[in-house]
Amino acid sequence: MTEETGRERAPSERTRVRRYNWLARYDRKTVEDILDATPLAHVGCVMDGVPFVTPTFFWREGDRVYWHGSVAGRMFKALEHQDICFTVSLLDGLVVARSAYNFNCNFRSLMLLGRAELIRDEALKAEKLRNFVNGLIPGEWERLRPIHQREVKVTAMASLSIAEASCKMRVGPPLDDEEDYSFPSWAGVIPIRYQVLPPEPDPRNPPGTEMPEDILKFHLG
Amino acid sequence: MTEETGRERAPSERTRVRRYNWLARYDRKTVEDILDATPLAHVGCVMDGVPFVTPTFFWREGDRVYWHGSVAGRMFKALEHQDICFTVSLLDGLVVARSAYNFNCNFRSLMLLGRAELIRDEALKAEKLRNFVNGLIPGEWERLRPIHQREVKVTAMASLSIAEASCKMRVGPPLDDEEDYSFPSWAGVIPIRYQVLPPEPDPRNPPGTEMPEDILKFHLG
Ligand SMILES: Cc1cc2nc3c(=O)[nH]c(=O)nc-3n(C[C@H](O)[C@H](O)[C@H](O)COP(=O)(O)OP(=O)(O)OC[C@H]3O[C@@H](n4cnc5c(N)ncnc54)[C@H](O)[C@@H]3O)c2cc1C
Ligand SMILES: Cc1cc2nc3c(=O)[nH]c(=O)nc-3n(C[C@H](O)[C@H](O)[C@H](O)COP(=O)(O)OP(=O)(O)OC[C@H]3O[C@@H](n4cnc5c(N)ncnc54)[C@H](O)[C@@H]3O)c2cc1C
Ligand code: HEM
Ligand code: HEM
Repeated sequence: MTEETGRERAPSERTRVRRYNWLARYDRKTVEDILDATPLAHVGCVMDGVPFVTPTFFWREGDRVYWHGSVAGRMFKALEHQDICFTVSLLDGLVVARSAYNFNCNFRSLMLLGRAELIRDEALKAEKLRNFVNGLIPGEWERLRPIHQREVKVTAMASLSIAEASCKMRVGPPLDDEEDYSFPSWAGVIPIRYQVLPPEPDPRNPPGTEMPEDILKFHLG
Repeated sequence: MTEETGRERAPSERTRVRRYNWLARYDRKTVEDILDATPLAHVGCVMDGVPFVTPTFFWREGDRVYWHGSVAGRMFKALEHQDICFTVSLLDGLVVARSAYNFNCNFRSLMLLGRAELIRDEALKAEKLRNFVNGLIPGEWERLRPIHQREVKVTAMASLSIAEASCKMRVGPPLDDEEDYSFPSWAGVIPIRYQVLPPEPDPRNPPGTEMPEDILKFHLG
């Protein structure tokens, strides 16, 4: 296995893919590509004894991911005291095989494990929130009503290293049992992706409010 | 609060939405609508001390959800011994406000809590797998190479009641602070949805293999 395919080595025993391990990737480029393809993660964190899965927006800066919420939110109280799992997944297609058993889906997914850190410094929080906003829409932070200090105060922020990461990716047509390829049912892939539709202006925008070019650049997937 | 809005009562104290609780819904129709909008869930289950979040296809039958995998998979060994969290989320839009603080997203999400059950009976498993396949593509099971008993044997299946469910939904334009509505930056919503593209036939389909109408009916979101 070479560096190039990223199959060479899991960063830890607990991130080593066992099921369908030929789909595994551990290289930095694949990790970053998946993280940069969508702003949506699902964070696993034990609270009151239950492994809650919380859908949350995130952004990446270098070798860490960041997410935000309320300082009163239960997740930001719980996550410093346990290792969490930060999962990102993209559904790329439904794989229609000749046998039910070989049905599958095309996907890209990533699991990050580790101990998250809270960011408490207000200047740093504000700087990171700017990166969050401008990462979604370039230059947007500078166009907005300037942030109030009290808004930064009530915002909680966590970050996690991308060091302990595993990825899985499936692409391409179904893999059927060799003897089934002559079976006459239709096989193939139904591709799925995110679609970004034309922006809908708030009816309360003052007449003549122009839409910045950068709003149109928003994309994901 | 009335039955109609579904805001009346959480099914349990631990599913009562606290943050942004005006987005909460607990009624059966909203639960079913969200479950029926996508086949993708993220299941939270503690394994080796970590609250792993596993992206997984699922299907609904009446008041239960079902999912499948390998009998050798670690999740199917772990989930009978703990309460798990089964989360479904749909990202419907990026909400662009006049202040960074009021940025948001439109979404539908659901968390189910409870103890999952394994289905071990082979006839029952096969029947449920048929419902899974035909739920994605009507009539597909009957077109496929008939299933082998050994395929049913190695398939693990879990189910969870939808009784302990909470939903959150956000729709519509940004909600800015009243004094910010005169601020001249563009505000509105960038809608996001799943797009299903035209099916791509497997190059190994025998010449003349026809695509069933029902493949074209596949949709999600
Ligand atoms: C859109 C989508 C739909 C899926 N549907 C199903 C389904 O219906 N049934 C099913 O069995 N599986 C499904 N999977 C795969 C599923 O997420 C797991 O990879 C698989 O079930 C094996 O889980 P495990 O815990 O037994 O894996 P193991 O191989 O035992 O896990 C060991 C380690 O591998 C890594 N790993 C495992 N899974 C992933 C992953 N998905 N992404 C990145 N790293 C990973 C983690 O570091 C983990 O600690 C789906 C995945 C995606 C993205
Ligand atoms: C696409 C998407 C993106 C999101 N991005 C962010 C983000 O960037 N930052 C952020 O703070 N939040 C985000 N959320 C909301 C997030 O999922 C949580 O609802 C929120 O963070 C509050 O979490 P909590 O555990 O403190 O909630 P609490 O209100 O304390 O949770 C109590 C109970 O409410 C129910 N509940 C909580 N959240 C949900 C939910 N999403 N769906 C259904 N039931 C729920 C559960 O039963 C839970 O046990 C996003 C949600 C979606 C769907
Ligand atoms: C950049 C785009 C942003 C997006 C997409 C976004 C999205 C969200 C979402 C979805 C929630 C959860 C609401 C809920 O519980 O249903 C949330 C909560 C929150 N956001 Fe943001 N946000 C963004 C930027 C910001 C910024 C810049 C700040 C701070 C200045 C901020 C402060 C907060 C706070 C404090 C909460 C917690 C609210 C509460 O639970 O009371 N957000 N955000
Ligand atoms: C209906 C559509 C189906 C879809 C979309 C689907 C999808 C998947 C996916 C994504 C995986 C995970 C592979 C991985 O780890 O990367 C999986 C695993 C598995 N599926 Fe399915 N499947 C379907 C139907 C079936 C049926 C009908 C059977 C049984 C007859 C089956 C048996 C299995 C088994 C046994 C595994 C575990 C493989 C392993 O880990 O060794 N699947 N499926």
